[in-house]
Amino acid sequence: MIKVTVWNEYVHEKEHELVQKIYPEGIHKAIAKGLTFMAAEDELSVRTATLEQPEHGLSEEILKNTDVLIWWGHCAHDQVQDGIVERVHSRVLQGMGLIVLHSGHFSKIFKRLMGTPCALKWREAGERERLWVVNPGHPIAEGIGPCIELENTEMYGEPFSIPEPEEQVFISWFEGGEVFRSGNCWHRGNGKVFYFRPGHETYPIYHDKTIQRVIYNAVKWARPQGWWKDISEGPNVPTEKAPEPIKQKGGSVH
Amino acid sequence: MIKVTVWNEYVHEKEHELVQKIYPEGIHKAIAKGLTFMAAEDELSVRTATLEQPEHGLSEEILKNTDVLIWWGHCAHDQVQDGIVERVHSRVLQGMGLIVLHSGHFSKIFKRLMGTPCALKWREAGERERLWVVNPGHPIAEGIGPCIELENTEMYGEPFSIPEPEEQVFISWFEGGEVFRSGNCWHRGNGKVFYFRPGHETYPIYHDKTIQRVIYNAVKWARPQGWWKDISEGPNVPTEKAPEPIKQKGGSVH
Amino acid sequence: MIKVTVWNEYVHEKEHELVQKIYPEGIHKAIAKGLTFMAAEDELSVRTATLEQPEHGLSEEILKNTDVLIWWGHCAHDQVQDGIVERVHSRVLQGMGLIVLHSGHFSKIFKRLMGTPCALKWREAGERERLWVVNPGHPIAEGIGPCIELENTEMYGEPFSIPEPEEQVFISWFEGGEVFRSGNCWHRGNGKVFYFRPGHETYPIYHDKTIQRVIYNAVKWARPQGWWKDISEGPNVPTEKAPEPIKQKGGSVH
Amino acid sequence: MIKVTVWNEYVHEKEHELVQKIYPEGIHKAIAKGLTFMAAEDELSVRTATLEQPEHGLSEEILKNTDVLIWWGHCAHDQVQDGIVERVHSRVLQGMGLIVLHSGHFSKIFKRLMGTPCALKWREAGERERLWVVNPGHPIAEGIGPCIELENTEMYGEPFSIPEPEEQVFISWFEGGEVFRSGNCWHRGNGKVFYFRPGHETYPIYHDKTIQRVIYNAVKWARPQGWWKDISEGPNVPTEKAPEPIKQKGGSVH
Repeated sequence: MIKVTVWNEYVHEKEHELVQKIYPEGIHKAIAKGLTFMAAEDELSVRTATLEQPEHGLSEEILKNTDVLIWWGHCAHDQVQDGIVERVHSRVLQGMGLIVLHSGHFSKIFKRLMGTPCALKWREAGERERLWVVNPGHPIAEGIGPCIELENTEMYGEPFSIPEPEEQVFISWFEGGEVFRSGNCWHRGNGKVFYFRPGHETYPIYHDKTIQRVIYNAVKWARPQGWWKDISEGPNVPTEKAPEPIKQKGGSVH
Repeated sequence: MIKVTVWNEYVHEKEHELVQKIYPEGIHKAIAKGLTFMAAEDELSVRTATLEQPEHGLSEEILKNTDVLIWWGHCAHDQVQDGIVERVHSRVLQGMGLIVLHSGHFSKIFKRLMGTPCALKWREAGERERLWVVNPGHPIAEGIGPCIELENTEMYGEPFSIPEPEEQVFISWFEGGEVFRSGNCWHRGNGKVFYFRPGHETYPIYHDKTIQRVIYNAVKWARPQGWWKDISEGPNVPTEKAPEPIKQKGGSVH
Repeated sequence: MIKVTVWNEYVHEKEHELVQKIYPEGIHKAIAKGLTFMAAEDELSVRTATLEQPEHGLSEEILKNTDVLIWWGHCAHDQVQDGIVERVHSRVLQGMGLIVLHSGHFSKIFKRLMGTPCALKWREAGERERLWVVNPGHPIAEGIGPCIELENTEMYGEPFSIPEPEEQVFISWFEGGEVFRSGNCWHRGNGKVFYFRPGHETYPIYHDKTIQRVIYNAVKWARPQGWWKDISEGPNVPTEKAPEPIKQKGGSVH
Repeated sequence: MIKVTVWNEYVHEKEHELVQKIYPEGIHKAIAKGLTFMAAEDELSVRTATLEQPEHGLSEEILKNTDVLIWWGHCAHDQVQDGIVERVHSRVLQGMGLIVLHSGHFSKIFKRLMGTPCALKWREAGERERLWVVNPGHPIAEGIGPCIELENTEMYGEPFSIPEPEEQVFISWFEGGEVFRSGNCWHRGNGKVFYFRPGHETYPIYHDKTIQRVIYNAVKWARPQGWWKDISEGPNVPTEKAPEPIKQKGGSVH
């Protein structure tokens, strides 16, 4: 059983009628439903969390019970408390998977893990996007076919200021003439990170079965395979406990 | 002419007689002298900066005139102001090279760029270290030979919690039985980052000609080759300026 | 059920009494037994194949029924037929996992997949080796602890002329003063490749429970997750079948 | 002075009038002229070589005097002798740069270095291509601007079965709806390899000043920075010459 938490800032859905119509229960609920629909019985346990909850719904207890965290945010990135970001960061390093969706490219947690601005070009013209699978053998592309077509999307264009992806799964073609690295994998510490471009508050993209399948695949790919609990510790190895017998030499300020 | 700034927290040298004897003018001056010694005429312009100076000696003006920054710190990492770290971070992303030495693995700037804890094991027993060149063709290893031997060093041991290096130049063997990835390269944005393990306040390692040669090589490797000034910007491309003619479709909350 | 084939050139064991004593049934049988011992019921199906068999025991039929191939060879690399190497290569590209052991670094199939000489330094002095886990979260290191100690091993030393590993799991320390990248992961096409250093015909290394555990872990890591059957094909997409409607323009020699 | 050899199979130009009109002296001469035009005085020394010459114009002597080799081939890949491919391969591993153009993706030397099929989809419809710079700081993109537009090109589409690029410089958008990783960097041994997609025998692409600039940039990027002459050798280190004093232990078949 993989324990999944879907996080959403949950702001647009309460403020704009247009968004409400598409995601009446919020984007997080739509993503959670998609996962539940895709999963076999007892394969996933899915909960949601939002910005407005205490500790943004990401308490130590909840994170301890999260194997994979899905992140959606757009207009409220700077309202996420730094302390919570560090908590999530720490959990990813120990082994929790993280899936960052669409405008989450500018979230504090994604930029924190990448070490770069994660900036990009954009255009909201409702244009056609085609995501090509560049790595047909990758588990995240399982059952997807050669490409995914989305009739109305916001455009994201290169250059995307990220570290070179360790593995690429999707590259997007846009009607307006741009391209984008749309599905990228990294390791950070013991955690796997997947960035997936599609999704927007004014298009019903998270109701799309193929998009749901990719997110479901990504959850399975990102699940922890063991934990590296002490990844942030820098322990001393006393001279008398060195693997090979050695004698203390030289000076020290300690 | 490559403009180099050597940064040092410059604390141990003023507090411990032992360190003063080895680095009477500070570690930064020793590194600067080594670079000047190695360089051809008009090849490098080297200045130094320290924690105690206004803005830690890293004003906008000085950074604008720095092509490669060398970083040494050990006991005062948390005294480096976050604003200055962001300034250095921003400059690296735009293209400035960064060389992080020894205990700088725990500096704010290195952890900020890596996105991971950069933790390791350590032991101060003055033991022998042998750095093997694993990539004889790499420009940072030019003129070095198959390995570097250091008679007295602090041990750093794996696991070193960094993102997988893009290129490795050195791996260390220690008398006490450990190993360490001692010379590692990454890109972050348009900047090159090199971590180099050797160095300690109580050993005369930065007076060693071979170590000076590696640092000199690394400066040349890390020098900017153009700048990506707007790497942090996320510009809109209006529909009417799309490379291919498209029509506005779909809804928007803007 | 993961279908494993353990391949061995099976030469030393028949020619040298010393080797016979350690591996009376051949190295392949020792590795196969270790896997069977480690695996849960119905988790693995293990068979062996050797150089002397028709088609080296690697017929199309057998490869079609192999998910992960383990390769051991030392003195007879050049007796492996090129056609069989191409067949194995093709199967790896489609998705079969490949685990290359010890002196297999010079096998035709490993060099074919890497594109580099895969050369290294060596010494047969029966010295102590300590393999450090540099990536404690990696599934191949599951249950291993911080390091593996082997009392008598052949030394392999850097530089190891391989492409930069995508993931590193182990780095070795040797009593005689060298280091080596001992556990390295790559993808080639849809197949996963793991090189694991330990093993030699005159030391009982494949009877070691920890080494068996690593090989078992590697088999699970390298198992295929879907197949890319047409990876070698370069299909034409006729103009009238382009995803976007376009008109034929320009000249052609066809 | 960087010594460049431009290699061309030189077949289409002699057989098709259409190709002759565009490249009357052959594609190799057009590329060589572009390089000479771009270079400062005494910066490059450019020669050409073709399939029909003795040893395909790639004798030991000529390769020894080549720093960067540019490769163009399309319909005669299988006429290139394996021995010459091995010779080029060996020189790349030692440090020679290699730039593979367009249909060279299926050349023996490129597949040999990559270890994968390097297959792709294609369509010859003379459609528009736009190559986006995904890495504005990369030396190969110097002076190029955000994208390169080519009005008539052959389409190459993903999946491109190559190992994950170490650095990506260009990704292509095609009018017909596909995308492609069009500018990719790898290291193999001590040599740098750059694959650059544009170019075709029936379009005047190598007369384009921006394309010439990219090839010129790539030559400078790929130039050797030292040589790793013995990369293919696997030397023994006798026990008495081990860096640390050790005693011979254990058995051996030698």
